[in-house]
Amino acid sequence: MQTIFVQFKCRPGAAYRVADRLVEEIEEISEVYSTSGHYDLIAKFYLDPERDIGHFVTERLQVLDGVSDTFTTVAFKAFGRG
Amino acid sequence: MQTIFVQFKCRPGAAYRVADRLVEEIEEISEVYSTSGHYDLIAKFYLDPERDIGHFVTERLQVLDGVSDTFTTVAFKAFGRG
Amino acid sequence: MQTIFVQFKCRPGAAYRVADRLVEEIEEISEVYSTSGHYDLIAKFYLDPERDIGHFVTERLQVLDGVSDTFTTVAFKAFGRG
Amino acid sequence: MQTIFVQFKCRPGAAYRVADRLVEEIEEISEVYSTSGHYDLIAKFYLDPERDIGHFVTERLQVLDGVSDTFTTVAFKAFGRG
Amino acid sequence: MQTIFVQFKCRPGAAYRVADRLVEEIEEISEVYSTSGHYDLIAKFYLDPERDIGHFVTERLQVLDGVSDTFTTVAFKAFGRG
Amino acid sequence: MQTIFVQFKCRPGAAYRVADRLVEEIEEISEVYSTSGHYDLIAKFYLDPERDIGHFVTERLQVLDGVSDTFTTVAFKAFGRG
Amino acid sequence: MQTIFVQFKCRPGAAYRVADRLVEEIEEISEVYSTSGHYDLIAKFYLDPERDIGHFVTERLQVLDGVSDTFTTVAFKAFGRG
Amino acid sequence: MQTIFVQFKCRPGAAYRVADRLVEEIEEISEVYSTSGHYDLIAKFYLDPERDIGHFVTERLQVLDGVSDTFTTVAFKAFGRG
Amino acid sequence: MQTIFVQFKCRPGAAYRVADRLVEEIEEISEVYSTSGHYDLIAKFYLDPERDIGHFVTERLQVLDGVSDTFTTVAFKAFGRG
Amino acid sequence: MQTIFVQFKCRPGAAYRVADRLVEEIEEISEVYSTSGHYDLIAKFYLDPERDIGHFVTERLQVLDGVSDTFTTVAFKAFGRG
Repeated sequence: MQTIFVQFKCRPGAAYRVADRLVEEIEEISEVYSTSGHYDLIAKFYLDPERDIGHFVTERLQVLDGVSDTFTTVAFKAFGRG
Repeated sequence: MQTIFVQFKCRPGAAYRVADRLVEEIEEISEVYSTSGHYDLIAKFYLDPERDIGHFVTERLQVLDGVSDTFTTVAFKAFGRG
Repeated sequence: MQTIFVQFKCRPGAAYRVADRLVEEIEEISEVYSTSGHYDLIAKFYLDPERDIGHFVTERLQVLDGVSDTFTTVAFKAFGRG
Repeated sequence: MQTIFVQFKCRPGAAYRVADRLVEEIEEISEVYSTSGHYDLIAKFYLDPERDIGHFVTERLQVLDGVSDTFTTVAFKAFGRG
Repeated sequence: MQTIFVQFKCRPGAAYRVADRLVEEIEEISEVYSTSGHYDLIAKFYLDPERDIGHFVTERLQVLDGVSDTFTTVAFKAFGRG
Repeated sequence: MQTIFVQFKCRPGAAYRVADRLVEEIEEISEVYSTSGHYDLIAKFYLDPERDIGHFVTERLQVLDGVSDTFTTVAFKAFGRG
Repeated sequence: MQTIFVQFKCRPGAAYRVADRLVEEIEEISEVYSTSGHYDLIAKFYLDPERDIGHFVTERLQVLDGVSDTFTTVAFKAFGRG
Repeated sequence: MQTIFVQFKCRPGAAYRVADRLVEEIEEISEVYSTSGHYDLIAKFYLDPERDIGHFVTERLQVLDGVSDTFTTVAFKAFGRG
Repeated sequence: MQTIFVQFKCRPGAAYRVADRLVEEIEEISEVYSTSGHYDLIAKFYLDPERDIGHFVTERLQVLDGVSDTFTTVAFKAFGRG
Repeated sequence: MQTIFVQFKCRPGAAYRVADRLVEEIEEISEVYSTSGHYDLIAKFYLDPERDIGHFVTERLQVLDGVSDTFTTVAFKAFGRG
């Protein structure tokens, strides 16, 4: 699986509506939080290995009503206690 | 209690109207100041321990007329003379 | 529980040693990933509700050998399918 | 009284020692918190009206061992319920 | 007296009209210059000691037609040859 | 295959020595250029699908003598004329 | 040949349409990828030695529907195993 | 003579039209180039010693159709082989 | 006369010593203030029309003990009530 | 010919020595100025068409004593009155 973090800046007052729609409509979502700082939300998604991350972010996430900007961070490796 | 600082950038000329409404309508407010620098206002809020800070900021504060951007800083610990 | 994300910038070549020590020594860790972009690592931690986040970050994480900078983001609410 | 907020970036692992010294040695302090984001601490100080803020920040605060940078925000007006 | 510097970013082509109005309408002004760099103008104002700087900037300066952004710097102390 | 772009900031005068070593020692390299702007070099690497990108960047690239900073961009999809 | 990298920020949801048009209409293109980070796309172009890069970027690329910003990096030299 | 460099950010697709008008209409121009990086154009102007640079930039250059932002750098001294 | 503003970032605790030396040793100085924000000091200087500003800043000001960075803004025109 | 602008940040007090050496030792130089703003110097160079710009900047310019950082902008086209 591929793991990505996407941070969302939303239009004023729209962040929770965006978070609700992420949970309802995007099945690849693992978790979504409202956060401190510049961005309103951070979400983690698991995608199939051959899935196109760019298509997912620009065609599935950026088009949600209320989203004004996104920032994508790819997680390369999960360290664990083994 | 949870303590947060929220800085507000307002539309030109709207900062004091925003400050007045914060004082009148947001009972969780502890203090609000107009400030030097990039932001127009800084406010401190005390929220109940189980209160959702993100919901408070995006649904109660960002929707006030005249607010164009917010930046949220969480205060973790109050140091004191004990 | 309190949830925080901490991003780490490490000295050149030190990021994986830092990640290993996070997993071995910091029991509050939930997950840690190496990432794209400016920072080398992102980690998520769960802390007890009364735990002091600032103390945890500055006294437990920043002091790990190889860490040159940290950025802390507090997660306010976990949205879920309920 | 004059009210200022000063944010502190400290050397890794030094933030709480700085906070303790602020409380112990700087009597003008009103409150100090560890925080999320880029800076480690935010503190509020009340100074006498004729007090020189710049002297206070550069000669009293910047010289504390462990402080690597400061950012000063002046609070102009405290809005209140009157 | 309180001394502040305010930098102005104006809409394209509007900077000199803003400067003229500052001189004509804002009696607290000491000097205003067009400048190099990102901002179009820098102005210095002297305000009475009890005057509210934030109110002055947001209600008197930001509302001038052609102003798109302001940045306020407070001058704490004037060093002199004594 | 996974495709990544890595930008390198090098110590003054060291960029070409770093570029030469990238070509000689890093077989996953596809191309490396000296560039305009803030960074000195941009390089593209192809990694096996199961290869850990973070490990590659921090343990293989950041440790090259003369490298002072890196910025990693992951390429998700190669568009083509098909 | 001259080699340039151009990064594209697109309007929300428009990045893949822009990528498709780059491939279909811009014959100087060598490759285009969707990417992590702030920009949506990175593309590499080969231009004839006497070709005007600025004209190409502003008159051929910036005018594509959906493009909101571009950043151009010139590649000076391709290092190779020769 | 006074020497200044002005960098121009133009609306998408407008940079060459702006450059042409600079050459045709602004006789103080010495040279103008399209460039790599964030800005689209850099131009150098020679102004009479008593000429007001700020007026020139805001009233003559910023008002050209297609200009969205300018950044002015003043050249203090020309070093030469003498 | 030429008018310039120079902002100074000083080493921690050195700002007032720098300000004192500016007043004592730099006769071109008009005024110097300690300030809010990122920089510690702002100073205004009047130079003879044929004076080389760059030489003045780098050879006279940057070399003062305790100065770590400077930022120079040229004032083009003083607007006045005439 | 290829035209590039290189901006130089120098160690405090070293900018004029760097400028002198640029004029004396770098024959490709066309002009060099001390400037306002963040950088100390801007220089323009003309290079033969087949000359490697990256090599020139990193091996000839960055190694001059006193240079702490450089930023390279490529000039694509010189607009002219024809």
